[in-house]
Order: sequence, then C-alpha cells, then structure tokens
Amino acid sequence: MEQKVISRRELIFKAGALATGVAIVAAPGIKMLSSAGAAKKPSSELPWPYKKFTAAEIKEAGNIAHDAWFKGFCSYATLIGGVQILRRKVGEPYKSFPVELTTFAHGGTAGWGGTCGTLIGAGVLATLCAGPKVGEAIDNEVCNFYATSALPIFVPDHPRAQLRTTSISDSPVCHLSVGKWMKKEGVGFLSPQQMDRCGRVAADMCMRTLEYLNQWADGKFEPKTKAPVMVNEIPSQNNCTDCHGDKVPKTSGKFGTGLNLLKGGH
Amino acid sequence: MEQKVISRRELIFKAGALATGVAIVAAPGIKMLSSAGAAKKPSSELPWPYKKFTAAEIKEAGNIAHDAWFKGFCSYATLIGGVQILRRKVGEPYKSFPVELTTFAHGGTAGWGGTCGTLIGAGVLATLCAGPKVGEAIDNEVCNFYATSALPIFVPDHPRAQLRTTSISDSPVCHLSVGKWMKKEGVGFLSPQQMDRCGRVAADMCMRTLEYLNQWADGKFEPKTKAPVMVNEIPSQNNCTDCHGDKVPKTSGKFGTGLNLLKGGH
Repeated sequence: MEQKVISRRELIFKAGALATGVAIVAAPGIKMLSSAGAAKKPSSELPWPYKKFTAAEIKEAGNIAHDAWFKGFCSYATLIGGVQILRRKVGEPYKSFPVELTTFAHGGTAGWGGTCGTLIGAGVLATLCAGPKVGEAIDNEVCNFYATSALPIFVPDHPRAQLRTTSISDSPVCHLSVGKWMKKEGVGFLSPQQMDRCGRVAADMCMRTLEYLNQWADGKFEPKTKAPVMVNEIPSQNNCTDCHGDKVPKTSGKFGTGLNLLKGGH
Repeated sequence: MEQKVISRRELIFKAGALATGVAIVAAPGIKMLSSAGAAKKPSSELPWPYKKFTAAEIKEAGNIAHDAWFKGFCSYATLIGGVQILRRKVGEPYKSFPVELTTFAHGGTAGWGGTCGTLIGAGVLATLCAGPKVGEAIDNEVCNFYATSALPIFVPDHPRAQLRTTSISDSPVCHLSVGKWMKKEGVGFLSPQQMDRCGRVAADMCMRTLEYLNQWADGKFEPKTKAPVMVNEIPSQNNCTDCHGDKVPKTSGKFGTGLNLLKGGH
C-alpha cells in the first residue's frame, strides 16, 4: 500500500505543477544534512549558518521569548528567542534581519484567531536556519507538538502571573488553544494569567524548534508527523469533530486526492 | 460609550503589560505617514524604503504571484509578487531578503489548515514596507477583504485551469476558504482548478496589500476594520456559528475584557 501512495505522490510531483520547489511535506525517514559548514552565499539564499544551542542557551531562548511576548506578542517572541542568541553566536546575516517582520501574526494573525503566532515565528526561525524544506518539516513537528501537548510547559525565570492549569488544544489554531485554556483556568482574555500563559507557550515553541534544529545539525532530524493535508486530503487539523460535530464531510471519493489511501479514507 | 471603551483600552495599555511595543490594532482613523523619505538605517529596522507601485506594476505583481504559487505555494507567492518588483524598483535591502522564509506557511501552516498562507505573505510584505504597526493594520484590512470577498477575482495572463465559480469564506482560515470553494466548484484538493484558484487568491492578496501600501505612502491609509479580537474579546473570526452552531460561548462577563462594550456584548 505504501508503495502505491508514494507512486501517486510521485505522479503528482512529476506532473510538474508542484515539482519545482517545495514538497508539501518532507518524506518521512529521510535524514537531512546540516549546512552549518556551507560556503558563504548571499543572505537572500537559505539556509543561513546555524550553530547548535547548548541546553543553557535553549533555556535562555525560552526566557527571552517569554519576556519578549510583553513587547511584541507571540510570533515576535518565538522568533526573537532564537534570533537574539544567533546574532551573538553567528552574527550576520541574523544581525541585519528585521526580526519584527512577523509581529502581525499574533492572535492568530492580527487577532483573527487562526494559526497561533508562535507557529509562524517557529516556522520562520526553522526556515532561516535550515531552509524552506527542512524548516517546514520542523514546523510541522512543532505544530503537532503544539496540538498534542498540555501547555504551557516552560516555567520562566520571571513569571508575570501564577498559573494553575495546562490544556491540550488538539489544534494549532489560536482561538481554540487560548479559548480552551482560558475556560479551564477560569480567566478572561488579556488577564495577567492569559498573557503569561501565551508568553510561556511562545517559549515552549521556540525551545522545541531549537531542539529540532540541533537534531538536524547533527544529521539526526527525522520527520515523524504526517502533515494533516496528506492524511485528510485537505489542509486541516485532526480535530474534525470540534467544529463539524458528527457531520464530518467526506474528503475521499469525488473531492479526494488519493493521498489518504494508507488510512483507508476519511 | 466610545469614550468609555477607549478609556478601558488606555487603562490596559497604561498598565504596562502591552505598552512597550505593538498595539493590538491601530486606532481607526489615524493617518500614518510614509517613511519613503526616511534616512538610511540598518536593515534590521523596519520599515524599509517603499516606492509606490503603478497600476501596471500591481498587475505584474499579481501575475508573478500566480506563477509563483506553482513554485512555492501561497505564502511565498504573495510575498514574492511584491518583493520581486521592489528588488527592481528599490534594490537593497529587498535584494538580500530571504523571500522563501514563510514558504512553510502554505496550506494554513505546513498543511494544518489554519490562517491562509496568503495572509502571512501579505503581512510580511506590508510589514517590511510599512513597519510592524502599520503592517499589522494593513494585514487586518487584507484579512477582512479575504473573508468578505467572492474569491478569486484576479484573472492571470497565464491561467493553468478554467474556473467556474467564486466563493466567500467568511474566515481567514485556509480549511474553510479552500473547502467552501472546492465544494462549490465540485473539485478535489490538488485538482488543477484548486491549484489555479489558490494561485489567483495569492495574486488577489498581494495586489490588495500593494494598494493599501500605496494609500499609506500617500498618507491616505485609514484602517477601517475593527480586529475581531477587539469585538469578540478573544482572537477569533466573525463566523462564530460556522463551528459553534447556535451554542456560541459568551465571552463577555466573567471571561470578558470589556473590549466589546461598544457592541453591547456578544
């Protein structure tokens, strides 16, 4: 069966429409090499040089991210956590990089409650350091970590509020993630607890991204999460019933791509 | 009433937690000046120089975006549509900019169906040219345009498929937007029609962003859309019943911020 699915994907890619740049997901199990030793090239070309973070530096990145949330919210926080240390460790081109460029992505993009801004910051951080293909594969893993973990995990050196609870979002979407947590904690939006929680989540995603980048730099990063678009035949999460109730539309058949044959339809 | 709400917001901002950087939304009605004539500064600081696009250049950006979808999907397409012309018109720092850095955001972030990647590309484009505060205000308008318009609008010079229909997403979320359109058009994911539709939507968002940037460069950009986070007291869309049915949770009262007093609760 697996061979059949791969052949279908190859067919799609060979058809040319999707062939010239980026794969929808990186193929599972393929080890990708670090380019830390690559020759100098224009900063318009990715990836940029990466140097592995120590455990202490990863924790420092978490604290930078948490503090930075209160300056520029979640996407900025996740990105600056890594970039600030890369500016010190590597220098250019990180020093010249306009790190505020995804600040708008907070609140699920300008407050519209879509993808959590931490996952946009994480994706940019991973892409700068490992290029668009590996960067996407890393962000896919971070999305899965985000959707399946009881968050927040990180305890910052300087918390702004004491938190009682954690929650699992089942989704990379801000509205669901912060909404479920607020309900469980019993607090409102813009409460000190909610703000500190989101700062800690930014730290969690920044740190997780750096852990994957470290694995990649060692040639040991192996993508494990099948992107939902491949499983469900439409860009999607795996929490279908959260919105659809028991009326989850069929994506196989007429509207299907055949990408989920492994799963036996949806 | 308006005075009361503004006072509440001021109170929140004066409390310090949100005071040091970026506003949640730009205040409506405030005209923001272009920095096209600003003195040269490090490329780490935004905004970068912007030169107004002609109508022909905006159309060219649309065609670049549509073509680029087939190389790097929606977020990359929306961003390169503007950046490629800015590299020619302005030069640095756009020439050195790693324009692939948000490619991962396609399919609502690595295929997870969250915020449409076009709105991430649009947000980065607007932020590079106008800075984080105005960039977010522009992206907020583009999100509203995305959610309320029958898309796609743009007819590219080199379509890859003929399309029969348009649809209104009521949401900035990829899963809802592409799902509603596919259902109406009667095609599946990765069909030639769906791919061309998404390429055209990338063109639409790129072109709209450039139109807002042109207004801003003339000192005439006036934010008109109240970000849903301000209206609904949680990062959210305005299509509550799409997922919640008739059981839309209350966000005012215990879990509320008071930000939606103007609307009389939700």
